[in-house]
Amino acid sequence: MLTAEIIAIGSELLTPERVDTNSLWLTDRLNRLGIEVKLKTIVGDDDARLEEAVRDALKRSRIIITTGGLGPTEDDITRKTVARALARRLLLDERVLQTIRERFIAMGRAMPEINARQAMIIEGAEALPNPHGTAPGLYLEHDGRAVVLLPGPPREMRPMFETYVAPKLEAKGGGVRVVRRILRVAGMGESAVDERIAPVYTQYKNPTTTILFNRAEVEIHLTARAASEQEAELLLDGLAGQIEERLGDAIFAFRGETMEEVVGLRLAVGGYTVAVAESCTGGLVAQRLTDVPGSSAYFLEGVVAYSNEAKTRTLGVPPELIARHGAVSAPVAEAMAEGVRRLTDADFGLAVTGIAGPTGGTPEKPVGLVFIALADDAHTEHKRLLLPGDRQLIRWRASQATLDLLRRRLI
Amino acid sequence: MLTAEIIAIGSELLTPERVDTNSLWLTDRLNRLGIEVKLKTIVGDDDARLEEAVRDALKRSRIIITTGGLGPTEDDITRKTVARALARRLLLDERVLQTIRERFIAMGRAMPEINARQAMIIEGAEALPNPHGTAPGLYLEHDGRAVVLLPGPPREMRPMFETYVAPKLEAKGGGVRVVRRILRVAGMGESAVDERIAPVYTQYKNPTTTILFNRAEVEIHLTARAASEQEAELLLDGLAGQIEERLGDAIFAFRGETMEEVVGLRLAVGGYTVAVAESCTGGLVAQRLTDVPGSSAYFLEGVVAYSNEAKTRTLGVPPELIARHGAVSAPVAEAMAEGVRRLTDADFGLAVTGIAGPTGGTPEKPVGLVFIALADDAHTEHKRLLLPGDRQLIRWRASQATLDLLRRRLI
Repeated sequence: MLTAEIIAIGSELLTPERVDTNSLWLTDRLNRLGIEVKLKTIVGDDDARLEEAVRDALKRSRIIITTGGLGPTEDDITRKTVARALARRLLLDERVLQTIRERFIAMGRAMPEINARQAMIIEGAEALPNPHGTAPGLYLEHDGRAVVLLPGPPREMRPMFETYVAPKLEAKGGGVRVVRRILRVAGMGESAVDERIAPVYTQYKNPTTTILFNRAEVEIHLTARAASEQEAELLLDGLAGQIEERLGDAIFAFRGETMEEVVGLRLAVGGYTVAVAESCTGGLVAQRLTDVPGSSAYFLEGVVAYSNEAKTRTLGVPPELIARHGAVSAPVAEAMAEGVRRLTDADFGLAVTGIAGPTGGTPEKPVGLVFIALADDAHTEHKRLLLPGDRQLIRWRASQATLDLLRRRLI
Repeated sequence: MLTAEIIAIGSELLTPERVDTNSLWLTDRLNRLGIEVKLKTIVGDDDARLEEAVRDALKRSRIIITTGGLGPTEDDITRKTVARALARRLLLDERVLQTIRERFIAMGRAMPEINARQAMIIEGAEALPNPHGTAPGLYLEHDGRAVVLLPGPPREMRPMFETYVAPKLEAKGGGVRVVRRILRVAGMGESAVDERIAPVYTQYKNPTTTILFNRAEVEIHLTARAASEQEAELLLDGLAGQIEERLGDAIFAFRGETMEEVVGLRLAVGGYTVAVAESCTGGLVAQRLTDVPGSSAYFLEGVVAYSNEAKTRTLGVPPELIARHGAVSAPVAEAMAEGVRRLTDADFGLAVTGIAGPTGGTPEKPVGLVFIALADDAHTEHKRLLLPGDRQLIRWRASQATLDLLRRRLI
């Protein structure tokens, strides 16, 4: 299998705030072309260290991709430093210079002299056009290695890779295609999922299976290799089908969709409407549902009834019910779901009440205790949950379980 | 200045999904100790490449920190590979083994034999206790370099660094302390902020100033170096004071606090209550306000009035007003703010209505048009915004502006 390494260049990438997201995107694209990323280096605007990183990379990898450092300023050292590491000259490319000039003219400005530097091309390299910026990329082959220099801004880097680099690397890759699929699971823990599906996925070397715990969700990542995307998809269909047999409804997404997208689609297709009454989640369920474009077709109203008065006044929860069972209880959750449904005339009323912490817990009602409820015209159901995690995680998990309750009803 | 490099180990860090967040945290801590991070390498569970990475690091850096690969399985190669790169032996440490055994006994289990591997210590290294897991860290000095091996899970890595590693590195750092402060700005663009404060901050080499655009917020990062934290804080106070003179109320946080924390604190201190009526933000304003622990003291109720019926029914917005001006209009925003205040008897009623897109825009009312309003017992005000960005960004920016409207009233 072909291997690559990525060198991200820029002193800002060595601060506590900035993540090198380019390499994640590139890794995904490279993987799809059957190319594995074996190493990533992040280096500042530092001649000596960059030259060393490129030299080291040339020794061990067939494909080397750099991002960043192609701008017009002194800090932008990638062109000259990579040239030095390759022992090649930098030459001014008149055609590239003309393109950069024209770009400035089109913006109604004269080209600043420093931008001429961006027309310097490593001897033997091909300049890769950049319709979204002034810095061209570079592609060259050196001792059987492919060396690719890409600009740092994602909106310049991504289309350049797709248009000019991917086809070249695909030709090198020997026709292997790698396709990934993400299955998402609700209401089950990581080890429970693994126990259920290990007998299936361990029988396959292709696709490979990884179980990840991402925030409060279990994700099953399937990766298939084949001569074509279609063939890889068929392999994925086969394994995904067997996993579905084992997990059933617990899988809510087969293509990486979010819970709110899945629920939204089912509501839209069925022509149903929904309204939400929330306490401990503080608006998160409504916010997730309305994150989906077009959600106004099915989302009618949300009530964040944080105080007991709000539960009574807006949702019509009887004060006696709260006095008898407490605000965090199954009867109150059900009354909230019925109340918001009555208020809005929605097909479904969803409700959640609980203790997100860090304070407010008692021995009988600890932090993490959450009741969720769903009401429709026929009946009302509830579920009691005891969720681990900090305040934010409890709120997120509660919102996920609430949406999942509706999803299961809609199946 | 002392320089460090970080090597993150684990094949999962070379997938498209996983970011090496440990190195961000470590960079922040190292910077505070006056140590600059000059290079980061991310390598898989791959003996040859890891050994090379460690050898290269020893050639150029005074401090080398690895994270990950200290687990008990075959995949966990850090101990043995670093030992090889240093040409040192691995020795079983009976005391460490005993600690691991006791940890399992405390959990009511026998230690699996493979965990004995975690008691193998590189010759001459100090084992760093791990109260949150079985893998001890390692610290050693080699040819004047500090080599530190830390576990991958953040909840194990972070306290281990703070307790055992930071004091050792501090001693090496020659007493330079670096302190950072984050000022957050609302309602101004990046270049407007820069124009206003450049005449001030360019006069200082210490602290240094960086202006960052983070999501929809402008952040001003100040970094001071001094012999002590107190001295650095004084330098920061001086510059922050001058920046405040230039920006005034636009700065909402001087210590990196979030907008919802700042607003929440002011509400709590003043003994005020708030209620929120939202349309395009779909619950985000309520969710952000209630993200703050203890927010039940001031947050009474939120209404996500997505449909026109909800605006009329729950908030009492006159249907004629919606018919005449449209749901996205200043009069409707004000009526929503007054309505939710009337409904809940809160001191402040906040409202937001707008077009988050991607659809629903018209030439007169384009995507990004948002009206926000604030009502108290004396009067009601509104603001018209035209926000750039995609759906999520427009929603976030609208929520930020809404909270900021209340913040400015509370000053």
